[in-house]
Amino acid sequence: MYKMKNNYGERIAKAQKVMEREGYSCLILGPSANMYYFTGLKTTPDERLQLVVIPAAGEPAAILPEMYQSKAAEQIAGSFPLLAWADQQDPVDLVKEAVPRKAEGPVAVDDTLWASHLLQIMPVFPEAIFRPASRVVDSLRMFKDEEEIALMARAHAAADRVLERVRQEIRPGMEERELAFFIETAYREEGCDDISFKPIVASGPNSASPHHQTGNRKFQAGDMVVVDCGGLFQGYCSDVTRTFCLGDGDAEIKAVYQAVKEANEAAFQRIGEGYAGEKAGCSGEEADRAAREAITRAGYGPYFIHRTGHGIGLDVHEAPYLVEGNGEKLLPGMVFSIEPGIYLPGRFGVRIEDIVAVTSQGPVRLNRYSRDFLEIQ
Amino acid sequence: MYKMKNNYGERIAKAQKVMEREGYSCLILGPSANMYYFTGLKTTPDERLQLVVIPAAGEPAAILPEMYQSKAAEQIAGSFPLLAWADQQDPVDLVKEAVPRKAEGPVAVDDTLWASHLLQIMPVFPEAIFRPASRVVDSLRMFKDEEEIALMARAHAAADRVLERVRQEIRPGMEERELAFFIETAYREEGCDDISFKPIVASGPNSASPHHQTGNRKFQAGDMVVVDCGGLFQGYCSDVTRTFCLGDGDAEIKAVYQAVKEANEAAFQRIGEGYAGEKAGCSGEEADRAAREAITRAGYGPYFIHRTGHGIGLDVHEAPYLVEGNGEKLLPGMVFSIEPGIYLPGRFGVRIEDIVAVTSQGPVRLNRYSRDFLEIQ
Repeated sequence: MYKMKNNYGERIAKAQKVMEREGYSCLILGPSANMYYFTGLKTTPDERLQLVVIPAAGEPAAILPEMYQSKAAEQIAGSFPLLAWADQQDPVDLVKEAVPRKAEGPVAVDDTLWASHLLQIMPVFPEAIFRPASRVVDSLRMFKDEEEIALMARAHAAADRVLERVRQEIRPGMEERELAFFIETAYREEGCDDISFKPIVASGPNSASPHHQTGNRKFQAGDMVVVDCGGLFQGYCSDVTRTFCLGDGDAEIKAVYQAVKEANEAAFQRIGEGYAGEKAGCSGEEADRAAREAITRAGYGPYFIHRTGHGIGLDVHEAPYLVEGNGEKLLPGMVFSIEPGIYLPGRFGVRIEDIVAVTSQGPVRLNRYSRDFLEIQ
Repeated sequence: MYKMKNNYGERIAKAQKVMEREGYSCLILGPSANMYYFTGLKTTPDERLQLVVIPAAGEPAAILPEMYQSKAAEQIAGSFPLLAWADQQDPVDLVKEAVPRKAEGPVAVDDTLWASHLLQIMPVFPEAIFRPASRVVDSLRMFKDEEEIALMARAHAAADRVLERVRQEIRPGMEERELAFFIETAYREEGCDDISFKPIVASGPNSASPHHQTGNRKFQAGDMVVVDCGGLFQGYCSDVTRTFCLGDGDAEIKAVYQAVKEANEAAFQRIGEGYAGEKAGCSGEEADRAAREAITRAGYGPYFIHRTGHGIGLDVHEAPYLVEGNGEKLLPGMVFSIEPGIYLPGRFGVRIEDIVAVTSQGPVRLNRYSRDFLEIQ
């Protein structure tokens, strides 16, 4: 039987229990946070097939290009077999070797596996139904252990320091992408291994677009500037948003800001209220409604055009989601964003995003940067 | 009928011709270089479904999250319909609206579309066979027009300048990831919008791993350091590799370096020889063999453990591939890497990578940095 470093073996055993219970024949992972979570293998997706096959019972196996073999062998340290293929070979033959002989039941495939790779391996399972791996792994990955939460707290302490540096750096005349690159550098300087996603810097009318692509617009006096960014600390992501006002905000800007701030607080409070020791907290949709109601009360309901939050961990976006339709409870161990926003098309937008961990004492914010109105003079 | 900005309409018409000829019912693109190539839409993949559906005949349609709508509408400027879905809706209903009524024949899906999204839309096409979109689009994207090659030349001029800055910066005591971050910054300073992939900085024994993950090893005197990096210029990638020797290289280091340099030149020459005006050049596998023969002649055949090259354009890796088994000719308009390497496990490695465009006058290198032995004293 395989022996794993750290708690990988335990995690695999837990996934196998889920697979057995739900009738899955195997779990097929691509280069992803899932692969890292279950094996410690860290690799970048590309056109070469890279898989880890975890059967419902028995030993996993990796299928990797020969050129990645030496590094991967170090990472998994002989815990399970590694089948390497050369550029002139067809790796599908190795997949056939790696899958359980009498595989019955659905196959769970990694959500982010490339379609070309899924289509490549489908003929190995001519009868199988395929389902996204999230149905097997979310129930594990959603619950962070103490070490994971400690790493995320470190990642968010760095995010707090970066936001303070942004506050000191931001000024009219600066370009969006100039600030974005300042942020990328600052995360490294603050001890992160990398950024967790490309910083979103959305200024003036661009701030009304929630996922604006940072461009070369220059900040002007009077702009609202949404800064949404995060770093990676030992594989774990941070993700925070603050909105800065360059100069004095007028009454409407302040009213919108206040509504977003109250919505953020309303969702946080709702989670705390619903929470009672080991008993279930409030659901994802209840938290979403609490934020939405606050914004609707302020008269901006139609301008809050996205869900209230998403889980976060090894991926920036993962389960659970704070969205209408998610009746699942937010339980201890879960870590997610609360990020209401108001977006007035062609004018400006405001978003305030915190990351919250549910603990046995209730919800706590992992980042601590001020949510007060941030006027830059 | 739809009108497209720039040459998007023309590109779609060409893809539709291929689809009609090969019997495809439609082409489904995710957030990818393909989406950008055909529509100008630039967006990042995430858990929210984002698609462009191009039927074999008729008008395309985009299906995007509501929060991406305003930006996307700007990018496509009304050329075709944009169906937006809110976070609490099921986007699959919109996919049903967007696909041709009587779709027959295989569906081509974007190679990099997430498996979870492919599984999500498969029920819309209960009878269909799915194939990777590369079978439709490679025949277009492989052939770069003059403007594309000009952009790639700009991207590679920046890469040359970055390599020169690396030569000036690199020294014993520096960490791999410190140099990697220097490179990231340098690409921006040299006019690129971003890096095209995370720089590979592999020092000492790490250089024997072709896709080493840049870490915190400190360079030591006597190290070989493989630096593989590239920038993005208006969407187009550069990708170059040089291997630096910190100090005097011994006879074996120099012999290995010389063999790799000759292999690089042998492949380039082979492409030039096979080339005669409008007539076909040499094939991908012939170019690969030329490089491999040079390394085998020097006695290092078993240590050249990857293909000789890959196409490059909007993606860092795309068709055509210089690999055994690819009998397709390398024709004018194609742009690809020549990157032979020798990797001595536990000791050191050398790789020299250039990007070559085939023109009507034969092959030309887009980067010009010296391929001579690079000793850093």
